[in-house]
Amino acid sequence: MKAVVFDAYGTLYDVQSVAAITEQAFPGYGELITQIWRIKQLEYSWLRSLMRRYEDFSLITRQSLAYTLRVLGLQHEARVFDQIMDKYLHLDLYPDAVAALAAMRGRKLAILSNGSTDMLNALVRNSGLDRVLDATISIDSAKTFKPSPDAYALVETKLGVPPSEVLFVSSNPWDACGAKAFGFHVAWIERVTPEAMALACVKSDLMLPLTLYKALRTQMDELGFEPDHRIRTLSELPRLVGIR
Amino acid sequence: MKAVVFDAYGTLYDVQSVAAITEQAFPGYGELITQIWRIKQLEYSWLRSLMRRYEDFSLITRQSLAYTLRVLGLQHEARVFDQIMDKYLHLDLYPDAVAALAAMRGRKLAILSNGSTDMLNALVRNSGLDRVLDATISIDSAKTFKPSPDAYALVETKLGVPPSEVLFVSSNPWDACGAKAFGFHVAWIERVTPEAMALACVKSDLMLPLTLYKALRTQMDELGFEPDHRIRTLSELPRLVGIR
Repeated sequence: MKAVVFDAYGTLYDVQSVAAITEQAFPGYGELITQIWRIKQLEYSWLRSLMRRYEDFSLITRQSLAYTLRVLGLQHEARVFDQIMDKYLHLDLYPDAVAALAAMRGRKLAILSNGSTDMLNALVRNSGLDRVLDATISIDSAKTFKPSPDAYALVETKLGVPPSEVLFVSSNPWDACGAKAFGFHVAWIERVTPEAMALACVKSDLMLPLTLYKALRTQMDELGFEPDHRIRTLSELPRLVGIR
Repeated sequence: MKAVVFDAYGTLYDVQSVAAITEQAFPGYGELITQIWRIKQLEYSWLRSLMRRYEDFSLITRQSLAYTLRVLGLQHEARVFDQIMDKYLHLDLYPDAVAALAAMRGRKLAILSNGSTDMLNALVRNSGLDRVLDATISIDSAKTFKPSPDAYALVETKLGVPPSEVLFVSSNPWDACGAKAFGFHVAWIERVTPEAMALACVKSDLMLPLTLYKALRTQMDELGFEPDHRIRTLSELPRLVGIR
């Protein structure tokens, strides 16, 4: 493997880390907003791609947040909306990210993300990953979102590494499937394990439906493709690319 | 309007009517299975289209049901699985469907659906709509699903009516947006009203998350397009096409 390419949202960066600010803005609704916002953000990226009505991820993220607040009947000021949006430029890194990247220095390391160029550059700079990544690739120049092959093809265009020499890492089942269908080697990182999900179901009747709702985004999909590897933490990656 | 074209699943046919058989097969899980199955079915149609890995809706419906039973940890025999699948060929018509179609005789009336040709033909025949429809159009020949423009374009190919003379009817917000972006006149039928949703939320704390989950598929989306009409029952349609 000449290059290791990461999905950003949910893989290196914890999209769930917006929950603190959504909870602060709308007490009692933080978790719900976070889940619905994410699912609609993804849907809108797929639907706009299919409709051939591309808009960048920054607008899609705004529109999906607007949908979420509307569906929950939550009134808000523009200032609050913008504060929540700003968190997308300051998402928390998963605790295992920096060490794993550092351990793979020497390989080409990059992000390939649905995020717009501006969003990604700010996020990567704010978290200090600009010092370890060789490239931060936005699908923006392809004008279509993952899992379109046109989006994944940007890796070869930008890094000069063919798919057969790329290990692609994503926590998102649909992204893992798409990358595999494209021709990458794929590592799916299970950020939420089935065991943790089952435990959460047992512990709380009230949250059962919500927990399942989250489960829909964290279990491997039935799309006819399997990732080459299943990992639980990024620290397993160096081994996968032959580094001990 | 020379033609009135209907979405099938959720618009003429009640996809929620599978809940009785899923509940019978898995007591206590009928509603959950129904919701998750539907959301994954839609996702897989979008994702496969984007991935350029088309498979027909029959397979997608099987795969999304398999996902649903797996995510819920429900063991089952092949016979039970096939019984549930068979319901998709015998979905209940919404009570307002037959009368509305009859009232528009004289206009070209058709279905444009993601369903495969075989599924749709069986469904339409089993429900008797073959006697009132001029055409049942599957997106199968376009090898991509709605909301791709290639899917909507089949209406002109098959009926010979240009988009500007077509009224497209769907309860699915994403379908209504896609049809509008394509150039149809669009009527969005709100099968679940915001008022009914709000009432369900108030009546039951336990079901709040699940109710919201359903809400995500029934509120108009934020995709930059608005339907021309918002209706609550198909019986409003004849008026919209100028029939009193």
